[in-house]
Amino acid sequence: MKLVKLLPLAAAAALAPALGHAQEEAAASAAVEALGTEMVFIFNTLLFLISGFLVFWMAAGFAMLEAGLVRSKNTTMQLTKNVALFSLAALFYYLIGFNLMYPGDAWIVDGWIGAIGTTVLEPVGVTADAAADVSYASVGSDFFFQLMFCATTASIVSGTLAERIRLNSFLVFIVVLTALIYPVQASWTWGGGWLGSMGFSDFAGSTIVHSVGGWAALTGAIILGPRIGKFAKDGRVQALPGSNLALATLGMFILWLGWFGFNGGSQLAMGTIGDVADVSRIFANTNAAAAGGAVAALILTQMLFRKTDLTLLLNGALAGLVSITAEPLTPGLGMATVIGAIGGIIVVFAVPMLDKLKIDDVVGAIPVHLIAGIWGTLAVVLTNDGASFVTQLVGIVAIGAFTVIASAIVWFIVKAAMGLRVDEEAEINGLDVTELGMEAYPDFSKG
Amino acid sequence: MKLVKLLPLAAAAALAPALGHAQEEAAASAAVEALGTEMVFIFNTLLFLISGFLVFWMAAGFAMLEAGLVRSKNTTMQLTKNVALFSLAALFYYLIGFNLMYPGDAWIVDGWIGAIGTTVLEPVGVTADAAADVSYASVGSDFFFQLMFCATTASIVSGTLAERIRLNSFLVFIVVLTALIYPVQASWTWGGGWLGSMGFSDFAGSTIVHSVGGWAALTGAIILGPRIGKFAKDGRVQALPGSNLALATLGMFILWLGWFGFNGGSQLAMGTIGDVADVSRIFANTNAAAAGGAVAALILTQMLFRKTDLTLLLNGALAGLVSITAEPLTPGLGMATVIGAIGGIIVVFAVPMLDKLKIDDVVGAIPVHLIAGIWGTLAVVLTNDGASFVTQLVGIVAIGAFTVIASAIVWFIVKAAMGLRVDEEAEINGLDVTELGMEAYPDFSKG
Amino acid sequence: MKLVKLLPLAAAAALAPALGHAQEEAAASAAVEALGTEMVFIFNTLLFLISGFLVFWMAAGFAMLEAGLVRSKNTTMQLTKNVALFSLAALFYYLIGFNLMYPGDAWIVDGWIGAIGTTVLEPVGVTADAAADVSYASVGSDFFFQLMFCATTASIVSGTLAERIRLNSFLVFIVVLTALIYPVQASWTWGGGWLGSMGFSDFAGSTIVHSVGGWAALTGAIILGPRIGKFAKDGRVQALPGSNLALATLGMFILWLGWFGFNGGSQLAMGTIGDVADVSRIFANTNAAAAGGAVAALILTQMLFRKTDLTLLLNGALAGLVSITAEPLTPGLGMATVIGAIGGIIVVFAVPMLDKLKIDDVVGAIPVHLIAGIWGTLAVVLTNDGASFVTQLVGIVAIGAFTVIASAIVWFIVKAAMGLRVDEEAEINGLDVTELGMEAYPDFSKG
Repeated sequence: MKLVKLLPLAAAAALAPALGHAQEEAAASAAVEALGTEMVFIFNTLLFLISGFLVFWMAAGFAMLEAGLVRSKNTTMQLTKNVALFSLAALFYYLIGFNLMYPGDAWIVDGWIGAIGTTVLEPVGVTADAAADVSYASVGSDFFFQLMFCATTASIVSGTLAERIRLNSFLVFIVVLTALIYPVQASWTWGGGWLGSMGFSDFAGSTIVHSVGGWAALTGAIILGPRIGKFAKDGRVQALPGSNLALATLGMFILWLGWFGFNGGSQLAMGTIGDVADVSRIFANTNAAAAGGAVAALILTQMLFRKTDLTLLLNGALAGLVSITAEPLTPGLGMATVIGAIGGIIVVFAVPMLDKLKIDDVVGAIPVHLIAGIWGTLAVVLTNDGASFVTQLVGIVAIGAFTVIASAIVWFIVKAAMGLRVDEEAEINGLDVTELGMEAYPDFSKG
Repeated sequence: MKLVKLLPLAAAAALAPALGHAQEEAAASAAVEALGTEMVFIFNTLLFLISGFLVFWMAAGFAMLEAGLVRSKNTTMQLTKNVALFSLAALFYYLIGFNLMYPGDAWIVDGWIGAIGTTVLEPVGVTADAAADVSYASVGSDFFFQLMFCATTASIVSGTLAERIRLNSFLVFIVVLTALIYPVQASWTWGGGWLGSMGFSDFAGSTIVHSVGGWAALTGAIILGPRIGKFAKDGRVQALPGSNLALATLGMFILWLGWFGFNGGSQLAMGTIGDVADVSRIFANTNAAAAGGAVAALILTQMLFRKTDLTLLLNGALAGLVSITAEPLTPGLGMATVIGAIGGIIVVFAVPMLDKLKIDDVVGAIPVHLIAGIWGTLAVVLTNDGASFVTQLVGIVAIGAFTVIASAIVWFIVKAAMGLRVDEEAEINGLDVTELGMEAYPDFSKG
Repeated sequence: MKLVKLLPLAAAAALAPALGHAQEEAAASAAVEALGTEMVFIFNTLLFLISGFLVFWMAAGFAMLEAGLVRSKNTTMQLTKNVALFSLAALFYYLIGFNLMYPGDAWIVDGWIGAIGTTVLEPVGVTADAAADVSYASVGSDFFFQLMFCATTASIVSGTLAERIRLNSFLVFIVVLTALIYPVQASWTWGGGWLGSMGFSDFAGSTIVHSVGGWAALTGAIILGPRIGKFAKDGRVQALPGSNLALATLGMFILWLGWFGFNGGSQLAMGTIGDVADVSRIFANTNAAAAGGAVAALILTQMLFRKTDLTLLLNGALAGLVSITAEPLTPGLGMATVIGAIGGIIVVFAVPMLDKLKIDDVVGAIPVHLIAGIWGTLAVVLTNDGASFVTQLVGIVAIGAFTVIASAIVWFIVKAAMGLRVDEEAEINGLDVTELGMEAYPDFSKG
């Protein structure tokens, strides 16, 4: 270079680093960028891991809630169902569900039916270049998180049908639900399918998770029929009180806790200031909606019945949570409280309504998950300008129709093939002794 | 520029990048800085979210602890109170408490009474420039975390007053406590008020949370009076044993778990090596203090009573936790264990002392939260050179006096307006059947 | 410098920044590197804190599982043991265990016996330069995490020996186990001792934690003898059913949740894309193995007994978790499911096998933790090319022999010095009333 010749040696020496800088500096810029990429990937993955274990914990919440709300003669069975359903959901979502729900570009029927195949994780010690999507998160964390949503859907069904359905008949339904029904409809929105393209907005699944569980439960409850003694011939409804309200309350608190992961994780990212602040909004709003639902149920039951009803209080909080699930981000705290409160009010009125229809829902899952889920999905339009009421309605109806039809087919096949109900004697004596030969509380005299 | 003219073209070309570098490099430096800022913000926010859900979980811990330590005839009521009080705390801390506690520059009475107004979160997808304090954390996460402390204060009160207070009277007190009493005194230290300026040091709230809950409970217990049959006329104290020690133990474990968030989150930052290492110290110390409290109670009860007492063991662990809460950072592991152990010893002696004073504290919340809280606040001076014994005493007395006076006023108003106690028959038959019409364990025969 | 003199002023001005750049740019590069170092440290530390509190939660899981599987007359005692053992483990791991397990370069007997001394944390607000290992994580978080593994080992023992061992005799054993036995053998692999040098591979402790707990329990069970009435003289085995299966199921769910921290945290790092993706694989595999164990037990018990057995279902899931613990990273989801399923099958066959040997294991901890732990340790060779079957066998045998011999010595000394069993009358009437004077469920009539 001429410059070197023109300048004295000392000058050249002084400039040399400046020349070398071009590369060094590019390297520095690239390093900043790489570090930023790494940071985003780690934070997003961590969000899925934390949220995933919180939503896993909801499986315990459903188990406790339901075990507390059934009579003690059916408690072991309810616990068994909950452990088994989660395990089967984990197995079949791995075998079929995940790729059916997230087919990427490999749709079987474009936008309607995803891909077939078991889940394959990224290799051990994956690098930025080899990662499936370095701007997103690890496949393992994504699978882990999404699996929990599928299992939640299954958990919703078990409570409604408690105290009368046969274990294996129930579990066969769960296999179909978690392998096929849930993933197919979920792919329509979250997997990039036709409902998502239409603009259907369901942030964390008021419809896609909760109403689907609720529809499946409702369909089952109608086909299965009510428990013996629930609806007397003279039209009176017999209360069949839950055997352990401490357990039920624990279950509610577990669900409330898990819901921070359920809604918060559905932001799908926390690697930027905007994303993590959004996750924060979601946490605060989720809590506000639950509180709103509980307070509304507290006040309303006192007004209506002159007494506070703990089970309605618990279901009020849960309905608040379901209600905010379709849009936990855009509302302010006040609006989130109101959306949750309306969910709580819905539950107080829907529980007796179901009784009038002679639909026997042991734990109140249909009001909480289905009806409040519909409310929450419609409420999206209140705060999210991007959502349209009509599209929300299309989503609710399409997913509802699909779930009811698919569930009904499965329930009828199971009924024909293996029967749905335990026999009358077993139901009266309790499923624990007759079906499982194991009491939940063998040391305590029954009242 | 003259340089270009003076130098040959090649030299200019060689220099050009160097010149352009000035901007590029400044950009690179800014990028590093921006990335660092983003990282700190995300980590701090994440600390609040994780700690917040852990402290939320303490609400379940109190519910289980208290439900396990009351008699089975009052269990539904105790569960109802715990669900309701958390929900009301969430609502009123949003409506009033948060801004009253953290007024920023908008004090109504400078350093004494904060600002009035509901909590407003940052907008969706907030940017670094628009964030309320980009060097701190998101408003949503901060609110979420702080709310849980307010609710914890309320939870402490419910245990002491169990088995005799009317539901709605209790809930009215909780509204005032969470909307006004807690936030006002908390603003004095944590909101930048007069006690903080004086140098009062209460890291995570031995006084500000636990003693305040304890003072409110003590005031209520005195005004409310003991349960029927607790103190016989001949001076003997009647043990009224808790109905479900498994539940109580679960509650203790939940509280212990939640306390990692309670104390760890109070570091308020984990975006640097120093901060995250401090959070680690706090986790380890918190655990050590709980273990110290439990081991001390284990040994002491064996020495005094020749038997281990599970409820004192549980309360010993909790007292250890309360004791370390005012300063979980500066002690080493050994000192943390000792501070906790003294808390455990305090509980073993304070429980019978309260009995002698004929103050009926159903779950032992006054020894655990008030007395161990005072001890913990004084113990700050043992390891924190910045703290003064006199200032600690001023804080304890000022906050104690304020809480007792304010609480007494509210309790008396509630008593006059709506009554505090259920009637004698209701108390004897249990609040579950008489007040709520719902038993917690309807299937089990009562002994 | 000459350059300045040779060039016109303007040129000098233009170059000056370029010259200054050398420093500035080096600073920028250093800033990127420092930020990267800080990020890795924070993420790794955070992994330990989150995983640590999840593993802490397992202490509650064991307490609930065991309290649910003993008869109600021994529930208070089982709860007491679990609270006390965790507290003592925390104390003695701080006093002795941690440095014995991680001696660094200060081995007493190189590779065999570590260092003596209490744990000292890094100072408050530690800087990068002063950190013990800035490329790893904070000492406090490391201690917190490792402590929980020690406590888990102790928890395993309490279930097997329930309903007959004296409280203080049990606790003395726990002190020796957590202060000496566990840390010494753990140092051989994880502390850099001889087994680690040999290539023994036990990722999160199928052998080092679970089998060690299992061996200590087995040794104790043999020395202690079975419960009165468990094995009739005519050879028949008497079922002594657990008193609260809801609690036991809750315990299982808690353990499942905690295991994400147990295995996930054992990656020891999440500050890079590769590490956090590995933690994700571990979460997903851990869940798959638990589900595999549960489903295998579900199917197998139906095939063998024509009935589902909830306690075997719970233990099947736990055995799945233990089985995957030695290598949760390298298997794919399918293989993880199979490894867990074999664990579940082992439990179903091992429980009656122990009965035939007249070894009375109240909660099934020996099949779950010891036998499935051995299986898991051998299964490492299926997916990890770096592991050798022979070395795995050497590790299993060496650790097993050491634990059995050391435990037997302690058990015999304790037996001679203070006795191991409660007297016959106490055992028949229950330990709660006779030893503690406190019933767990005093309000419920016993059946």
